[in-house]
Amino acid sequence: MINRRQWLQSAAGSAALLGLAGCASTPFATTPAISTGTGDLGVVVERATGKLAIVNTSQPRVLAEVEGLGDLSHASVVFSRDAASAFVFGRDGALSRVDLLQRRITGRVMQAGNSIGGAISQDGRLVAAQNYQPGGIKVFDARTLELVADLPAIGADGKASRVVGLADLPGHRFIYALFDAGEIWIADLSQPGVPKLTKFRDIGKQPYDALVTPNGRHYIAGLFGEDGLALIDLWDEQPRARRILAGYGRGQAPLPVFKMPHLRGWAVAGRHAYLPAIGRHEVLVVDTETWAEVDRIPVAGQPVFAMARPDGRQVWVNFAVPDYSRVQVIDTPSRRVVRTLEPGEAVLHMEFTPRGEAVWISSRDANRVSVIATDGFQTLAQLPLEAPSGIFFTSRAARVGL
Amino acid sequence: MINRRQWLQSAAGSAALLGLAGCASTPFATTPAISTGTGDLGVVVERATGKLAIVNTSQPRVLAEVEGLGDLSHASVVFSRDAASAFVFGRDGALSRVDLLQRRITGRVMQAGNSIGGAISQDGRLVAAQNYQPGGIKVFDARTLELVADLPAIGADGKASRVVGLADLPGHRFIYALFDAGEIWIADLSQPGVPKLTKFRDIGKQPYDALVTPNGRHYIAGLFGEDGLALIDLWDEQPRARRILAGYGRGQAPLPVFKMPHLRGWAVAGRHAYLPAIGRHEVLVVDTETWAEVDRIPVAGQPVFAMARPDGRQVWVNFAVPDYSRVQVIDTPSRRVVRTLEPGEAVLHMEFTPRGEAVWISSRDANRVSVIATDGFQTLAQLPLEAPSGIFFTSRAARVGL
Repeated sequence: MINRRQWLQSAAGSAALLGLAGCASTPFATTPAISTGTGDLGVVVERATGKLAIVNTSQPRVLAEVEGLGDLSHASVVFSRDAASAFVFGRDGALSRVDLLQRRITGRVMQAGNSIGGAISQDGRLVAAQNYQPGGIKVFDARTLELVADLPAIGADGKASRVVGLADLPGHRFIYALFDAGEIWIADLSQPGVPKLTKFRDIGKQPYDALVTPNGRHYIAGLFGEDGLALIDLWDEQPRARRILAGYGRGQAPLPVFKMPHLRGWAVAGRHAYLPAIGRHEVLVVDTETWAEVDRIPVAGQPVFAMARPDGRQVWVNFAVPDYSRVQVIDTPSRRVVRTLEPGEAVLHMEFTPRGEAVWISSRDANRVSVIATDGFQTLAQLPLEAPSGIFFTSRAARVGL
Repeated sequence: MINRRQWLQSAAGSAALLGLAGCASTPFATTPAISTGTGDLGVVVERATGKLAIVNTSQPRVLAEVEGLGDLSHASVVFSRDAASAFVFGRDGALSRVDLLQRRITGRVMQAGNSIGGAISQDGRLVAAQNYQPGGIKVFDARTLELVADLPAIGADGKASRVVGLADLPGHRFIYALFDAGEIWIADLSQPGVPKLTKFRDIGKQPYDALVTPNGRHYIAGLFGEDGLALIDLWDEQPRARRILAGYGRGQAPLPVFKMPHLRGWAVAGRHAYLPAIGRHEVLVVDTETWAEVDRIPVAGQPVFAMARPDGRQVWVNFAVPDYSRVQVIDTPSRRVVRTLEPGEAVLHMEFTPRGEAVWISSRDANRVSVIATDGFQTLAQLPLEAPSGIFFTSRAARVGL
């Protein structure tokens, strides 16, 4: 039996063993594990320099940096089904595939003039990018990056629309919102050569972002052009878009809005969703069975991301300027802020480890990522990185709608 | 752009590309991915021959078989945090670690005389085994398989108890039930040399299995010695065990019980749990907010596993002898059986792919595993394996309580 000190020391020494070759294996003998799995890997976007840092969350540490990814402002990432590759959607319209084990770019296409994110199909075979310029979405074979479908988004008004809020649905389907046309579309690519479109018209003015709930049931789009949100229950036999939360805030915001909340980060914990209010220093609590607001929690600034720890026990919130150096933690059973942290200037993103024991937080202007324990709130590590923004872990590969 | 036929052909040919070495990488050129991630791997227990089949769920296919694992009847598996290793708990008391990429045993300890499963800590550093003989649990370092803690389970009656229902909790904690003593214990191994035990006495007679809900909040133990179940809300400030579902069935079962349901498989979909009734041809629907029964769904036999597709839209059910060659699918919004399948004799286990597009079903006496699409129910593949039982995919590494 070993004591705690020996245990910690042996764990610290384990990194040195990675990469050692072939120990003989005999029954009942124990040899160190030497394979490299991809379940505890991830990436951090270094937006100013067009680099992607490959990280390990078990240690935690930076394994490598991959350069040459172009304009990574507002970049987002999805992962291959085997969790070995990251697909990076750059603002400049580039779709790049980065191999996490080889630590290099294994594919790259300039697929649009101005892009704002993407998604990967349930079976991992199709990758879709949503575009501002020229609008619409493009769908690629995840293995070859060959174009499988080019789907312009021409609204009922006959004009090309920018696309936002792209997410995967079960089957070979993607759902997305047309900002200019005020529509929501579902593209079914079961037969890639013959894409089938389902269109929801008049869903509200200027949907600016959207999300699918963790169970894949509800699609919710925020509306820039009016108060409230558009909701579709995808499990309905005849799905239709309806308006919810008419008092959500956009139309009557008493404060100037410094940064629009990111909807993709909306937290669903148990039967409640925790939504960043627009322009107000509040997080809204919404009942996902009735879609009525049931509470408002005062927070330290205009919330940008509200993200649930994987077990839903906590929701972590970051803020727009001038409060963007703070992070607050909401305890969901009591709906109270239980902790305020200041991990470094300009907090842009947060990502929980797969089972939630820690959260990684990027502080752009402090040039670091902080790794913080979610139970005791102690800082476990600080990783120096250049202007870090988005953080994405491979456990996303097994989740719907991310 | 490619058509569907080309797309399918290129996908079918992709297997041949795996393992090819170093294609040169240049920006804007696309080379095939050659790294092997572990996100789409898994194992199937071949109980009669003491073998573990390593499988890939993207293809789907059997990659290799690993021999020499001893008595694998009722064996269960958890995965390392990097998803590269499987920890196998054998009925003969052996704990084996199998490397999925090297396809061999990298560690093995005989840790007890008779064992019935195990768990891995939230951070992946501790592996715990629960034992019938000599009772209690043993905790090991996941990397070295060194013994970290040996915790006998001596109940209030002063006697050693068999342990069942072991599961991980946040932090370095494990929860488990004492069959003979009628107690539930939590072991906190934050300081492995000084384990801290929390004991719940008089929780009910003969807890025979238990589960943690997917959010880690509730621990529920089935009772063999009386009707009903024991429930602990782990989020309470002062958690306590209470009795629920007094009419659950054990005490007044009108039918002989051919096989006790496996609680670990209980399905939580939205706010409802779907529980296999004991001895009755029914699945019970329970409200997880009130823990009251709200419905009963008639099914084709005595249910053993009731498992929710990852999105909760379906619950799949298998049965005890003599109905053990059938599988039924419940549509959760309507609570109706929408499909009955007969994938092969003696269905022992089911496992969903990470995002739920397919389910793998083991048919012991048909010597095969069937891979079935969960939307259209077509059989996608049949894999010949010897007397297959438990199926476990690496996506479990990122989940609580599995």
